[in-house]
Amino acid sequence: MRPIPSLAEVEAYLHKHIPLSAGMGIRVVACDATGVTLRAPLAPNINHHSTVFGGSTSAVGILSAWTWLHFALRSAGHTSRLVIQRNTVDYLAPIKRDFEARCTGMPAAQFEEFLRTLDRYGKARASLTAVLTCEGEKVAAFAGDYVAAR
Amino acid sequence: MRPIPSLAEVEAYLHKHIPLSAGMGIRVVACDATGVTLRAPLAPNINHHSTVFGGSTSAVGILSAWTWLHFALRSAGHTSRLVIQRNTVDYLAPIKRDFEARCTGMPAAQFEEFLRTLDRYGKARASLTAVLTCEGEKVAAFAGDYVAAR
Repeated sequence: MRPIPSLAEVEAYLHKHIPLSAGMGIRVVACDATGVTLRAPLAPNINHHSTVFGGSTSAVGILSAWTWLHFALRSAGHTSRLVIQRNTVDYLAPIKRDFEARCTGMPAAQFEEFLRTLDRYGKARASLTAVLTCEGEKVAAFAGDYVAAR
Repeated sequence: MRPIPSLAEVEAYLHKHIPLSAGMGIRVVACDATGVTLRAPLAPNINHHSTVFGGSTSAVGILSAWTWLHFALRSAGHTSRLVIQRNTVDYLAPIKRDFEARCTGMPAAQFEEFLRTLDRYGKARASLTAVLTCEGEKVAAFAGDYVAAR
């Protein structure tokens, strides 16, 4: 296990390697084995209704789950290539202010199984979800399949 | 029927009302009753693998279908509020260069039915798809449900 990076380090990593995350004003609020929380402000993500653009909602969901899996893999000593294969987003309510996406990753036993599959076959798929909230209200639900490959 | 706006007008509309579309460098390549094509460059949408970030792929798909429906409604004299309800994206191949999303909208008869439902019930749902390509290769498939409400 490698040490879990600080929130500032994770945020700097995202902003450097995925510059759109900086343009969207994404902040890393939490990032550890129990989950990742990303926060994004309304202003850079606004649409013509003065609510959050669906593309931003979707992108923050995608990134929250990706970040959890990326750093969980790194903590376990893996440097696998990680790509998204498929995702679904349900937009439940207009987002009128800053919002958050929270991905709680996978239970430990399931993650261990994922790592075993990756070790054995050189490839493994993880299905992750994220809940998007605005001032405590659930505003969107994200589900994505990611594939790690050695 | 109102006149279809020029590509420059549509692009200016998107960049003004959805500023992230400007940050992503989205250009409007086609916009008429037969479909909308949006193009986006790699650079502002790049990820840590030097391919397009899934959030950008998703956002361009969302925007292509939204743009078609928004301008089709306006051309038909409707100023309905239009929101995305749900979407799915299949990421088929890494996107290594500039890419496009093409939404061909709905067949005329289906769009007429959509307008009749909107007139009668004040609300109607449209299911739209978009195909994302990079140098002619299909790289992602987008499907989204949008709801128009008077």
